Amino acid sequence: MKEHLIIFDTTMRDGEQSPGASMTKEEKLRIARQLERMRVDVIEAGFPAASPGDFDAVRAVAETIKESTVCALARANDADIERAAEAIRPAKRQRIHTFIATSPLHMEKKLGMRPDEVLEQAVRSVRLARRYCDDVEFSTEDGSRSEIDFLCRILEAVIDAGATTVNIPDTVGYAVPEEYANLIKTLRERVPNSDKAIWSVHCHNDLGLAVANSLAAVLEGGARQVECTINGLGERAGNASLEEIVMAVRTRHDVFPCDTRIDATQIVPTSKLVSTITGFPVQPNKAIVGANAFAHESGIHQDGVLKHRETYEIMRAEDVGWTANKIVLGKHSGRRAFRARLEELGIEIGSEEQLNQAFARFKELADKKHEIFDEDLFALMAEEPAPSEQERIRLVSTMIHSETGEPPHAKLTLAIDGKEYSTEADGSGPVDAAFKAIESLVHSGAELVLYSVNAITQGTDAQGEVTVRLSKGGRIVNGLGADTDIIVASIKAYINALNKLQHDAVRINPQL
Amino acid sequence: MKEHLIIFDTTMRDGEQSPGASMTKEEKLRIARQLERMRVDVIEAGFPAASPGDFDAVRAVAETIKESTVCALARANDADIERAAEAIRPAKRQRIHTFIATSPLHMEKKLGMRPDEVLEQAVRSVRLARRYCDDVEFSTEDGSRSEIDFLCRILEAVIDAGATTVNIPDTVGYAVPEEYANLIKTLRERVPNSDKAIWSVHCHNDLGLAVANSLAAVLEGGARQVECTINGLGERAGNASLEEIVMAVRTRHDVFPCDTRIDATQIVPTSKLVSTITGFPVQPNKAIVGANAFAHESGIHQDGVLKHRETYEIMRAEDVGWTANKIVLGKHSGRRAFRARLEELGIEIGSEEQLNQAFARFKELADKKHEIFDEDLFALMAEEPAPSEQERIRLVSTMIHSETGEPPHAKLTLAIDGKEYSTEADGSGPVDAAFKAIESLVHSGAELVLYSVNAITQGTDAQGEVTVRLSKGGRIVNGLGADTDIIVASIKAYINALNKLQHDAVRINPQL
Repeated sequence: MKEHLIIFDTTMRDGEQSPGASMTKEEKLRIARQLERMRVDVIEAGFPAASPGDFDAVRAVAETIKESTVCALARANDADIERAAEAIRPAKRQRIHTFIATSPLHMEKKLGMRPDEVLEQAVRSVRLARRYCDDVEFSTEDGSRSEIDFLCRILEAVIDAGATTVNIPDTVGYAVPEEYANLIKTLRERVPNSDKAIWSVHCHNDLGLAVANSLAAVLEGGARQVECTINGLGERAGNASLEEIVMAVRTRHDVFPCDTRIDATQIVPTSKLVSTITGFPVQPNKAIVGANAFAHESGIHQDGVLKHRETYEIMRAEDVGWTANKIVLGKHSGRRAFRARLEELGIEIGSEEQLNQAFARFKELADKKHEIFDEDLFALMAEEPAPSEQERIRLVSTMIHSETGEPPHAKLTLAIDGKEYSTEADGSGPVDAAFKAIESLVHSGAELVLYSVNAITQGTDAQGEVTVRLSKGGRIVNGLGADTDIIVASIKAYINALNKLQHDAVRINPQL
Repeated sequence: MKEHLIIFDTTMRDGEQSPGASMTKEEKLRIARQLERMRVDVIEAGFPAASPGDFDAVRAVAETIKESTVCALARANDADIERAAEAIRPAKRQRIHTFIATSPLHMEKKLGMRPDEVLEQAVRSVRLARRYCDDVEFSTEDGSRSEIDFLCRILEAVIDAGATTVNIPDTVGYAVPEEYANLIKTLRERVPNSDKAIWSVHCHNDLGLAVANSLAAVLEGGARQVECTINGLGERAGNASLEEIVMAVRTRHDVFPCDTRIDATQIVPTSKLVSTITGFPVQPNKAIVGANAFAHESGIHQDGVLKHRETYEIMRAEDVGWTANKIVLGKHSGRRAFRARLEELGIEIGSEEQLNQAFARFKELADKKHEIFDEDLFALMAEEPAPSEQERIRLVSTMIHSETGEPPHAKLTLAIDGKEYSTEADGSGPVDAAFKAIESLVHSGAELVLYSVNAITQGTDAQGEVTVRLSKGGRIVNGLGADTDIIVASIKAYINALNKLQHDAVRINPQL
């Protein structure tokens, strides 16, 4: 019987801190439901003290998720911990995760505190957290660059104070596997009450070693919780990839003494959902979830070379949720078939009214596009305006004209707070013209920092999925839009970003 | 004094085998020059036996590169080795790299040979290669799944036969670091003449461990050559990333007994060049070369958190070649300034005629776009038609009209073999309409398998860089196009792909 390796997903906390990856409450709910479906043990839903919006999002996840533990992050102070406790209160399984920096550099430069003060505050915070919740995690920020004697002291003290999980992050992604595994092993040997807590790792990928460091700590260091994110999302070069951790442990069950309870067939759908919501593409040569990861199955290889499947295959694509593009629906499909397919795909439908709206959009798409694939349905549902972000700005109609020798011209009609306005502009291209036309009406003053388009499926009549990232006064939002017409998709994405910009507030990002 | 770790770049051989990443001779020359500038030790330029086109490309690289060793791959048979020797003959420093499968599964299922036959053929091939060249590498395909006793026998025999480098690939990406390092260590201990050769590793990334496996083999196994690719390009989940290997060894010089002679400031320009040529995007959270890898420097972090630079920084962005977007040129810049900037950026100019053409394109762009960045210049030069791929099809003019309630319409004039034709079509969007219009004239029958757009710089007047991947009869090509008008960029990319489709031939892909 294998030991259990706990998968702690921090896509919605550390992942969300990537510039441009911030998520609305509704987006977090969609990801949380998918993580629960994938059987993640712990979902770190956010940092409630960061802003009222973050608090609301964590609260909403706590109200929704039943199977996974819902975790909230808190700095080691009373106000943060009380806020975290309040946010997760509705959850069936709750965890408070509190942290403080323990490296000489961080204690001196960032906190301006002496080690004894840091230890005292850590203990006090864990005690407070335990008053609200039986499941308390404590992290030593910049743990891998901390002094081992001090780590032993503080970890023993917080376990005594009631921490049930202790986590030693490699905050700056500086560790190499053997060294990091030795650190965890040594700590577990030297801390007298180490058997009273689960040991956890949290690795950053600055040198490309986040997954390897995490796995070494599991294999040789005795860690039994790994903190990770979908697609390795996270600040800078990101965190350890959940999909790589899970599949390495599973594929090499001959080496690892433990396994996760993840339903791996949900990995690819989850990866696509996170990529769509954040607008962060997955590169084709990304392990497990990249479009080419299983390309030897796609008929590209010569038959002569691939005489036997096992010759080049250590995992099966279908085991991690890859399915062939399937034509699922067309213009004659009815509402019942539409609903059934959404349910099969695990797409949440919401109210009858939302289903009706989605079905109307589906019919509109089916008029323009011959074959509707699962990917189109994901995009269609991703577009759905969630109730709380009622769109102030809405696209009514467009006219684009572009001709060699003339500046491209866009003429749009927008509805703002229900009233229609016309606007037009020239630009260096039709997208530029359309964005300029919108700005001449809306005057948002936002700066366009990213623009990308990906075709959702193959073929020239595929829908383009556009991501627009806007920045204004330190706030960054992603807008998404999908349409068979990429100019229209671009306009939808721009408007979606403008609508979000009105909801998103400035907030603090903790560093772990 | 540190030992030397040899960097063997296989972007143009193993990297090029990624579906859709195939490169023309001119593209390979551009990459090879950049790899030489970065001071790569060995450039694996291709597999000459694969096709006449591959032979020509390797030959051209051999004629051009002076500082790095130029290596050609050959299966362990006379014809392949003679072809490889012929291709690299012009190079100042030459290497022949020959390989044969050594795992029970591959010997039986793929080769249909007994181990003794495999050993005999390996020895014979190495001897033949040594007749042409003093620098011969031998690889045991599927080495990590081979029997250790057989590996010892075959490696001893090929070293006796004259192999100067022996390479043990993890062909299917199945290894984990400690195990793989132990394999290399054990082999070096058991093979009696192991000190007569340099030991090399070649890891695939199916479980996300290619870099970690390579580094473990260096650190604990004594390997002194790492085979790797820019951006981790390669079949399936790719190979070990050159940039991660180089920067891990350099950043953790306290741990590694060796260092490379790579000029790390060329890493980001090389990454961008390979990404542009192959059309494979680099995900923002990719270590070292992702757009967010150093995002803590971009003013996104709150000042309060980032009191001291070293608090969150283990490398400096400028050390790996990141530079701030700089406005370098505008519409009043002259030919001299244009040329000077290209030279500063290390962009090869070619003939006076090519410079004139590029300058004309620059002036055209400067009319539409206010500020010209370095990235725009890279795109401008990437577009340049190389002499041998004279474009049969060329875009003369476009007219696009798209309006809510009507099907988008495209009207184009193309020149085919110098003669002009008009064509028009409706589509589900303006890009679809334009592609349909082209197809109605050209009848290529190619299938669109990938379409993506990225803005080259920030701002709404940025150029869009479009990648179009076409597939026909098992051949896959990428077309690139850049323009401030994304419809025009899309048309250019489609035509570029059609022009390439006429040059690219079917060929064999070796598996290492």
